[in-house]
Amino acid sequence: MTATGTTTQRRGRGARERILAAAAQLFASQGINATGMEQVAEEAPVSKRTLYAHFRTKSDLVIAHLRELGASGSTLESVLAREDLAPRERILRLFDQPGPDAGPVRGCPFIDAAVEFPDPHSAVHAHAREQKLLMVRLVTALTTELGCREPAALAEQLVTLADGAASRAMVLDQADYGRHARAAAEILLDNALAGAS
Amino acid sequence: MTATGTTTQRRGRGARERILAAAAQLFASQGINATGMEQVAEEAPVSKRTLYAHFRTKSDLVIAHLRELGASGSTLESVLAREDLAPRERILRLFDQPGPDAGPVRGCPFIDAAVEFPDPHSAVHAHAREQKLLMVRLVTALTTELGCREPAALAEQLVTLADGAASRAMVLDQADYGRHARAAAEILLDNALAGAS
Repeated sequence: MTATGTTTQRRGRGARERILAAAAQLFASQGINATGMEQVAEEAPVSKRTLYAHFRTKSDLVIAHLRELGASGSTLESVLAREDLAPRERILRLFDQPGPDAGPVRGCPFIDAAVEFPDPHSAVHAHAREQKLLMVRLVTALTTELGCREPAALAEQLVTLADGAASRAMVLDQADYGRHARAAAEILLDNALAGAS
Repeated sequence: MTATGTTTQRRGRGARERILAAAAQLFASQGINATGMEQVAEEAPVSKRTLYAHFRTKSDLVIAHLRELGASGSTLESVLAREDLAPRERILRLFDQPGPDAGPVRGCPFIDAAVEFPDPHSAVHAHAREQKLLMVRLVTALTTELGCREPAALAEQLVTLADGAASRAMVLDQADYGRHARAAAEILLDNALAGAS
């Protein structure tokens, strides 16, 4: 599946795409475990046979949904790879509010999925963990490029701020909550650059 | 219900306490929405009639569970009220790893509950929001007492770090993950105190 990054009309697409679109909408509005496979099939709409032909288990569907979010450029991680932006700007974009969206403010989809699949050995939790480790590797590359002192430790601090901001924005239902974390990130970056290089 | 803060044998307690103990164990190990009322009743063990006599809805049970966690002193928020500790120490305790526990590393129970009840108007999400607002008020009192510049903004940054650290510790299954955020908190506190007062 290719993701264009543009909002396209979901109707008329293939079954797999309609299933993922329905899952994305239901997971966001009511949570993953509160969403049954039957409801996803009804909403897509596809038969249950078709749903299970594409996704053998709920876990398979959740992981495909998370991969789709990553590919669509709608995750915190995706801005880190934007070569058109300077390294510092890419880091600070982690704290921007997400694009206009009808529903309530959402947190990081990987953390949210890990919450609903608490067993660290489950496939969904493991996938979420890989994404968060990828995120800190990308930020470490940027803090290294910037010439920051202790770039790996700084990267952990920056992604902790970004993830905390996303979670608090969700809990508080305040889309612009990231501004507090952004100001902290600026202080930490300046501190790590003072006297460095 | 009184919470002693000590681990006591749950057997032999009243029905309400056994229900809450069963709910706490099941919610932590498998998530809230993955836990049915029937399973809570079986695990307590109590009849379904008794369960519903104590908690009319799942939402009521979840909120009672969250209140119980707060009362037991096992939340981030509870350390902030410890008058035996100096203000700066109380803030930094937000980043300590939780006590030894058999299961996987858990995140903030209020954020986790809000993830599973995404509707910001739901009773559970609203309760979680109140707890996170209480947390930032408590930290603001401490940053004010310390004489920090812009104590309210600094408090938002510190709780964002604490919540992010709790979430990442959970996703990564690393109980000591908070050390990164603690180092960042020290930098932010020092920065807000430099030249202040």
